[in-house]
Amino acid sequence: MDVRPIGMFDSGIGGLTVLKEIQKELPNEDIIYLGDTKRFPYGPKSKETIIEISKKCTNFLIEKNVKMIIIACGTATSQALNELKNTFKIPILGIIDPTVEYIKKSMHKNIGVIATQGSINSKVWENEINKIGKSVICKATPLLAPMAEEGWTKNDVAKDAIHKYLMDLKNIDALILGCTHYPLFSDIINEELENKVEIINMGKKLVDYIKPYLNNFNLQNRENKIGSCKIYLTDTETNFSNIASRLFEDSKIKNKIEKANI
Amino acid sequence: MDVRPIGMFDSGIGGLTVLKEIQKELPNEDIIYLGDTKRFPYGPKSKETIIEISKKCTNFLIEKNVKMIIIACGTATSQALNELKNTFKIPILGIIDPTVEYIKKSMHKNIGVIATQGSINSKVWENEINKIGKSVICKATPLLAPMAEEGWTKNDVAKDAIHKYLMDLKNIDALILGCTHYPLFSDIINEELENKVEIINMGKKLVDYIKPYLNNFNLQNRENKIGSCKIYLTDTETNFSNIASRLFEDSKIKNKIEKANI
Repeated sequence: MDVRPIGMFDSGIGGLTVLKEIQKELPNEDIIYLGDTKRFPYGPKSKETIIEISKKCTNFLIEKNVKMIIIACGTATSQALNELKNTFKIPILGIIDPTVEYIKKSMHKNIGVIATQGSINSKVWENEINKIGKSVICKATPLLAPMAEEGWTKNDVAKDAIHKYLMDLKNIDALILGCTHYPLFSDIINEELENKVEIINMGKKLVDYIKPYLNNFNLQNRENKIGSCKIYLTDTETNFSNIASRLFEDSKIKNKIEKANI
Repeated sequence: MDVRPIGMFDSGIGGLTVLKEIQKELPNEDIIYLGDTKRFPYGPKSKETIIEISKKCTNFLIEKNVKMIIIACGTATSQALNELKNTFKIPILGIIDPTVEYIKKSMHKNIGVIATQGSINSKVWENEINKIGKSVICKATPLLAPMAEEGWTKNDVAKDAIHKYLMDLKNIDALILGCTHYPLFSDIINEELENKVEIINMGKKLVDYIKPYLNNFNLQNRENKIGSCKIYLTDTETNFSNIASRLFEDSKIKNKIEKANI
């Protein structure tokens, strides 16, 4: 048993979709969320830069005395997970493996992936899914994360962008949302795909992993309470609290936000 | 007379629209262009962050022995120009003043401005245009710079976004493109406004300033030659050279690009 908080980081609001799933599954865990809004978006940055900033985020969370770290960001997982695991002793869980495990066990044969340019460039999805003997089409969709940060997740511009991006993904059984911002577009993606394709939210798949993972490392918090959540942002970003308020139906979420000077 | 290069910086490709105008007007000047792609976009960042990174860009250019610096970025000009002028001795020209001067002399009474969140938050446009006794409506359009960096400047998604953003700007005589990325959307903006409104490209207005400015400081290069242009990027960004190639109709522009480690 370990009562220290779980640490999470993302480039912005995307990881909140993961946070939401974790809070449902592990309501008594305390969580420290770091949104690296100063460096958003991670998607177009080079591997070298993503590793450098992921180390900064990891160090920040370690200083906050977290017991483990979840990389709640597809780009940072694809580019920096191995390097972080080699550099730090703390348990670190990426957002990609649980989804690959799910795909492995599923009946799906033709997998589509949409993700940032950085994730697609890393070829992690291509390699991991080919390794389990399934076919995969990957598509970089660089505008979706900025659109989500703008709060445009249901309007015509978002619909047009989704339509344009998904045109190339024909005959797929499942679509992996390879960036944690993308579940914010679930409704219009489902509409575009006429509800015929399973839409995979990496945060939901991570949650299936997290309990056995905490058990393995003896990290569960078994206190009978509602866990706290503290949010740090590396830059002031007014949209963050607006979108977070809507996502968590919590108009006071602003009070949980502090500035992280990294 | 001063044969050293002119330095320019922007968060990405936006400043290229300014570079193009300068090369037309002053073809013999050597230019060093810094695209801070590692930190793109500047728009949603706080004033404090913009000042910090603008100082980094300025120092980099000073080390390259430039004779003056043009801030080819609306956000950095609005948030950091005064601080940079107070910090550095080198002549520094922002992108906003020449456009305000133009508006002052024009017959236009009702001015629209579209710009990044940072520029709008700074209230520089509101204050400067009110000061000259004209009315102004400002609108933050945060998705346009990421769209330009994605190369989506003429497709349906861009048209929808422009339509949505410009809906609030009624009865204007002129529209200032308050971010140097936005001239890439000139065609569809003109179409949306049915060619009834003067679209103001800050780069073109800066060019009217630059010759007398160089004269004042005795900084002109009077050599009879075609000036060179060197581009530094703070991060590798494949789209940069694609868009630059199209803008300058120069398929070899990649060879002019080097990495800046700042």
